[in-house]
Amino acid sequence: MNQTTSLRERLYVIIFEADTPAGKAFDVALLVAIVGSVLAVVLESVPGIAERYGALLRVLEWTFTVLFTAEYLLRVMCVGRPGRYVFSFFGLVDLLAVMPTYLSLFLPGSQSLAVVRVMRLVRVFRVLKLARFLGEATHLGASLRSSVPKITVFLVVVVSLVVVVGALLHFIEGAEHGFTSIPRGIYWAIVTITTVGYGDVSPQTPLGQIIASVLMICGYAIIAVPTGIVAAEIAHHPKPNPTTRVCRECLCEGHEATAGYCKACGAALRPRREPR
Amino acid sequence: MNQTTSLRERLYVIIFEADTPAGKAFDVALLVAIVGSVLAVVLESVPGIAERYGALLRVLEWTFTVLFTAEYLLRVMCVGRPGRYVFSFFGLVDLLAVMPTYLSLFLPGSQSLAVVRVMRLVRVFRVLKLARFLGEATHLGASLRSSVPKITVFLVVVVSLVVVVGALLHFIEGAEHGFTSIPRGIYWAIVTITTVGYGDVSPQTPLGQIIASVLMICGYAIIAVPTGIVAAEIAHHPKPNPTTRVCRECLCEGHEATAGYCKACGAALRPRREPR
Amino acid sequence: MNQTTSLRERLYVIIFEADTPAGKAFDVALLVAIVGSVLAVVLESVPGIAERYGALLRVLEWTFTVLFTAEYLLRVMCVGRPGRYVFSFFGLVDLLAVMPTYLSLFLPGSQSLAVVRVMRLVRVFRVLKLARFLGEATHLGASLRSSVPKITVFLVVVVSLVVVVGALLHFIEGAEHGFTSIPRGIYWAIVTITTVGYGDVSPQTPLGQIIASVLMICGYAIIAVPTGIVAAEIAHHPKPNPTTRVCRECLCEGHEATAGYCKACGAALRPRREPR
Amino acid sequence: MNQTTSLRERLYVIIFEADTPAGKAFDVALLVAIVGSVLAVVLESVPGIAERYGALLRVLEWTFTVLFTAEYLLRVMCVGRPGRYVFSFFGLVDLLAVMPTYLSLFLPGSQSLAVVRVMRLVRVFRVLKLARFLGEATHLGASLRSSVPKITVFLVVVVSLVVVVGALLHFIEGAEHGFTSIPRGIYWAIVTITTVGYGDVSPQTPLGQIIASVLMICGYAIIAVPTGIVAAEIAHHPKPNPTTRVCRECLCEGHEATAGYCKACGAALRPRREPR
Repeated sequence: MNQTTSLRERLYVIIFEADTPAGKAFDVALLVAIVGSVLAVVLESVPGIAERYGALLRVLEWTFTVLFTAEYLLRVMCVGRPGRYVFSFFGLVDLLAVMPTYLSLFLPGSQSLAVVRVMRLVRVFRVLKLARFLGEATHLGASLRSSVPKITVFLVVVVSLVVVVGALLHFIEGAEHGFTSIPRGIYWAIVTITTVGYGDVSPQTPLGQIIASVLMICGYAIIAVPTGIVAAEIAHHPKPNPTTRVCRECLCEGHEATAGYCKACGAALRPRREPR
Repeated sequence: MNQTTSLRERLYVIIFEADTPAGKAFDVALLVAIVGSVLAVVLESVPGIAERYGALLRVLEWTFTVLFTAEYLLRVMCVGRPGRYVFSFFGLVDLLAVMPTYLSLFLPGSQSLAVVRVMRLVRVFRVLKLARFLGEATHLGASLRSSVPKITVFLVVVVSLVVVVGALLHFIEGAEHGFTSIPRGIYWAIVTITTVGYGDVSPQTPLGQIIASVLMICGYAIIAVPTGIVAAEIAHHPKPNPTTRVCRECLCEGHEATAGYCKACGAALRPRREPR
Repeated sequence: MNQTTSLRERLYVIIFEADTPAGKAFDVALLVAIVGSVLAVVLESVPGIAERYGALLRVLEWTFTVLFTAEYLLRVMCVGRPGRYVFSFFGLVDLLAVMPTYLSLFLPGSQSLAVVRVMRLVRVFRVLKLARFLGEATHLGASLRSSVPKITVFLVVVVSLVVVVGALLHFIEGAEHGFTSIPRGIYWAIVTITTVGYGDVSPQTPLGQIIASVLMICGYAIIAVPTGIVAAEIAHHPKPNPTTRVCRECLCEGHEATAGYCKACGAALRPRREPR
Repeated sequence: MNQTTSLRERLYVIIFEADTPAGKAFDVALLVAIVGSVLAVVLESVPGIAERYGALLRVLEWTFTVLFTAEYLLRVMCVGRPGRYVFSFFGLVDLLAVMPTYLSLFLPGSQSLAVVRVMRLVRVFRVLKLARFLGEATHLGASLRSSVPKITVFLVVVVSLVVVVGALLHFIEGAEHGFTSIPRGIYWAIVTITTVGYGDVSPQTPLGQIIASVLMICGYAIIAVPTGIVAAEIAHHPKPNPTTRVCRECLCEGHEATAGYCKACGAALRPRREPR
């Protein structure tokens, strides 16, 4: 029993942390596997490549899927509270990453959704330069989180504007100029205000073009708003300096180097090992 | 008579404020009705849906319109100075929100303008998280207001540039390349400087393309100006902390939690009730 | 002779300053004339309108041109050093504003260049809210001027990038995909990096699309650079508070309310009159 | 032998520094040659010009190439540690700048790659206004370097998003609407999120357009992130004030006016001469 606990603990350190050599090696291998499996899925979708190397890519994809499934089960086994991991953001991503391949047995074509694996790449920050990048990501995340209320206000205004202008152009231009319905008008207004401008729908009447011009200048001017919000928040937030340690009980991340207990659930943290 | 005053006052608190449970419930119901009525108008404009569910959507739209009309009359009745409400921004929006449906009896198709109701959504800030979002909106509004003079200077320069370049390309490219008139050249210049770039009109001659390139790089560089202005203003403004109370006399909003009298007209404010 | 001097001085105050009622009235009239004459030129270029109202618009344009010519001569007469005014920025704009109409007698169609008059609109800041806007414009100008060296560094990098990538895509895609020459490749690269994206030329080969993708993400990321530069400069510059007084000798603008002598040439300034 | 050393040293000062009159003259001549040779390559690619002036342009290009080759050999000869120069950034650019012309003897068309010479233009900063611009470039470079970790985090998130959305639209829209493979879907997603919007591929199904709308609004909002990062970094960095002196041993640049020894390798620097 002591043996098992020790094995579980050793597995835990390897899989969830990156401060030890074994943990680092595991993360690098995982990284390679993620990039490889995403590449396999992407290349399989290209007609010319699928014809020639289809069988090989299919084998690769199944190999990676089986490996990721095994890794997922190991993660569930060695964490303190499995339920918390399974329903955490990364737990759901890890599960979603293996589903499409199994699903493709019943629904051909759905394996292309396996690219969701690319979201596992955010683990890369724990490998390359480790704590440095994690600290920047934490800082960026905190700045963005505190921008959320202002950005929400901004987006509600933008959405209202887009709905009103979209309906207005549907009324002015009508179906013969491509504005077949209000949703299509809204789609056009979003394409315009975000300055994307595909050109698949564009106003033809003078009045429509005047309104479009005003909308473009608005879009050009109001892009300043979210930028200003985020710039002000980033400038005012203090930079944290976390390690890559993870709480064994609740999987909370971002503990400071000097922390002895989890800041979220109070469980004792493992002492920090200096990376060699 | 005392009974009537008390009823008016109770109605007032429910309709115009959101700090009491009844006021909150009213605002949530209003929110649902607004979203529902906008959805009904939007869906009715889609040919496929209109054929199948047209009758149902038409009934829904009339129901919402009658409800909003009743609400508008109640608002006029229970406010201290009705004239001020009727000609305030929200009073005009509330009136505009019910007009298109009645208008559609005489001018078919005009009911699509009823989406102007979506502008009533800004009331949502008084419901969700209440004062927090209102405070952010006030802060954002104050920052933007103090950016207005600089942004005006900027827009006058942009408009002058766009008119000159638009006329120049009308002169260089001529009607055979799509620049049929100066207004069309100005429309093209706006599409270009705002980086929208539909591609419905684009220069064909080498000289036209050189001028267009310079205009694009200008547009790319000068978008920095409004952004810099707004970022600097947001960073320098102190954050206010208002409640959702409204002055009964002049409908001025954004009073601080400790305020006893309206900051705009000096009338006594109702004491603040803690939201339960 | 004393009479003449006095007339010249009175003319000077009316034409070049906006702090007195007469000076203000002159500027408002000028503003209306500028907008009117630009509108006349713009409308004349629209085929439908030109057919019906061509004669009227032509008369209007000539009237405005004669008025502007008279105004230009008055300006030259009443300023201390005419040579300085004639070769100053506004002097050149004022001259350019009347040339196209006279030129159109010899070169039909060139009257559309008369829209350059719109640049005279920047005088509007001296009329509306006067010193307030002039102060903002001065502040904005000073911030942008001190951004010039960094922006230049930035633009040299962008131009180098655009030339290299344009030549690369000419080499990869070739004439059959629209990249007929290096200048055309550079034009495409500018359209792409500035995120305008007309779509009149776009890469068709996989390698070309990969390079285009990298270029787009670069363009998306490096637009942050000028914005950051300008935002930092605006935030650090102190706001000036100038009047609309102009030095009679050298036409230098932007003197502070307390200034007694021109900051550029040392000539005595006229005492400031409070606008009524 | 003393003569040779003295010649080498004199050459060194002329070629690598710009604080002396001879060094400045050399840099201006080099600048003119770079612009001239790039123009020759660019113009040769235009069909109409190539037919008429092809022979002349070809001669010009070979002249410039021979000159640049001689300059490259001189540089290698007079620097303290040639190996360091050859493998430095500018050493590689200088070599790359002469290769394509020689390569075009074996692979026709490859001379268009000679525009890589334009990258040598960054030397222009050492000529015009000298230290001022170098200081700004150093400041900008330092600000951008310290933005790198946050920008990397940001780019990994953007790339993940683009891969997932690209695969999703390939799944939803399919080959009949132009989304023939996942790479093409990713290409479309990059074109959209960066707000370039060529319109060569665009979603046709309602679900695809809804996802595209969300992606555009995301792209519109998240462009705020790199801008905010860079603005905050530029605002916080102190401005350096370097000269154009270069360490003779290791070619390190950007030494302060008061520096006596190379900050990178400790070798004694040549005393600074005041530019006349």
